[in-house]
Amino acid sequence: MRISIIGLGLIGGSMAIDLKKRGFARTIIGVDTNKLHLNTALNMGIIDRACTLDEAIDNTDLIIFAIPAKETIRLLPKVLNKVDQQIITDACSVKGTICERVKHHHKRKNYVASHPMAGTENSGPWAAQSGLFDGKAILYCDVEDSSEQALSTIQKMYEYLNMRPLYMNAYNHDVHVAYVSHISHISSFALALTVLDKEKNEKNIFNLASGGFDSTVRLAKSSADMWSDIFENNSVNVISVLDTFIDKLNDFKTAINDSNLNKMNELIQKANHIKKIL
Amino acid sequence: MRISIIGLGLIGGSMAIDLKKRGFARTIIGVDTNKLHLNTALNMGIIDRACTLDEAIDNTDLIIFAIPAKETIRLLPKVLNKVDQQIITDACSVKGTICERVKHHHKRKNYVASHPMAGTENSGPWAAQSGLFDGKAILYCDVEDSSEQALSTIQKMYEYLNMRPLYMNAYNHDVHVAYVSHISHISSFALALTVLDKEKNEKNIFNLASGGFDSTVRLAKSSADMWSDIFENNSVNVISVLDTFIDKLNDFKTAINDSNLNKMNELIQKANHIKKIL
Repeated sequence: MRISIIGLGLIGGSMAIDLKKRGFARTIIGVDTNKLHLNTALNMGIIDRACTLDEAIDNTDLIIFAIPAKETIRLLPKVLNKVDQQIITDACSVKGTICERVKHHHKRKNYVASHPMAGTENSGPWAAQSGLFDGKAILYCDVEDSSEQALSTIQKMYEYLNMRPLYMNAYNHDVHVAYVSHISHISSFALALTVLDKEKNEKNIFNLASGGFDSTVRLAKSSADMWSDIFENNSVNVISVLDTFIDKLNDFKTAINDSNLNKMNELIQKANHIKKIL
Repeated sequence: MRISIIGLGLIGGSMAIDLKKRGFARTIIGVDTNKLHLNTALNMGIIDRACTLDEAIDNTDLIIFAIPAKETIRLLPKVLNKVDQQIITDACSVKGTICERVKHHHKRKNYVASHPMAGTENSGPWAAQSGLFDGKAILYCDVEDSSEQALSTIQKMYEYLNMRPLYMNAYNHDVHVAYVSHISHISSFALALTVLDKEKNEKNIFNLASGGFDSTVRLAKSSADMWSDIFENNSVNVISVLDTFIDKLNDFKTAINDSNLNKMNELIQKANHIKKIL
């Protein structure tokens, strides 16, 4: 199968590596407006050839969008306008705004909305790696709007990436990921900002950072372009979860302020319940 | 050297294992009011024998407090009253309240205030492990109040645990750890509470949890007794850092609410600066 990947960052690059290596793709065509990313992917052997979006559409069986939601929303209808039998999917972390945008497109059935829940705090083709998706969840949204053939092709593709399939509608998807992914990133960014604000001496941060701190601020290294795009496209859910998160922090603040050890214990013991789930 | 360890949880147990294994301790005496912990440590071979605090004081060269700050504050003056040449240290994550409590004790010089910055989210003697402290920071506080002999003995002990020494006063210690350790835990507890509140379907949390979520909520599995004790004993600093953290979260909320992509980008890019430090 000839596959075109639009966007050769961590996600697009990692998909390219394993889809080729594991035999699902015969040829990987790369498309990226970022020439550095495109040339790097070519030089690293992640893609077989680089071309424009229009050339890619004409010479491919499957097109994967691995670019921010905003760009996907802009380009997806244009690409749908031009396809015949080609199947399209995307890897965006938000699904509501994208599915909404193409809901009534006459070629909607060629498109499968998917979200492979994998990543690291690094970005760009340099960060691409084999095995990134192994064992992780692949979320399919609004599959009733896709043709059976398109869906089965995309399912087969993610089977090659060893992903666990889950199905939900785009609205529920965006609610869930706000809680189990987007808020973790905001929390981590805010934590890094807090420490950088208060610890003027960077050497102290480095010297004192323990394993706990490392793991909670790791996500603060994540790409600004990618995450501002996600927050923008899932703003209602993200703000709702942020409100709850701030409420919980204020519960801790009140308990600590009141020297209320019982309340602190109660809050932490409730939080400990996460042990039984993860 | 005969070493008594008061408290055989993760920290006390892990110290016992490596101090014996690496030849710093000839005998490890365990003291714990939690009989389950004490017997487990004995049965696991982590300690050589179990006895009461008074027996331990009389038959030992070095006493390590590895119990919560509140209990350390209560017991440390009593133990200092009874020691002759014995050296005492503690492993508490807060130092101000403890050093304040014994500042004018006539045996203060026998005590070295220390904080080995290591741990995991697990607790109890079952969680004790060899190598826990290797390469991590050991913070010494107010060393001018300890005798040279006491300090050099404790320094030698932490050398056996392969720790990197850092020196500061107890006040600065408590400020710094609020930023690089205590806030990470509150953030993680609050994150777990948020998700547990909103995701009534636990299976969703399990299925959707990605690597990012796992790493940010890992600390939410930490012991309630230990952490409420730490928050209580470092309340002023913890509340100050909590205020800053909530401010940063509100900055994100405002930017997202206003669809202000520039502001979101700016906040995340500032947070990304943590990359250069860690």
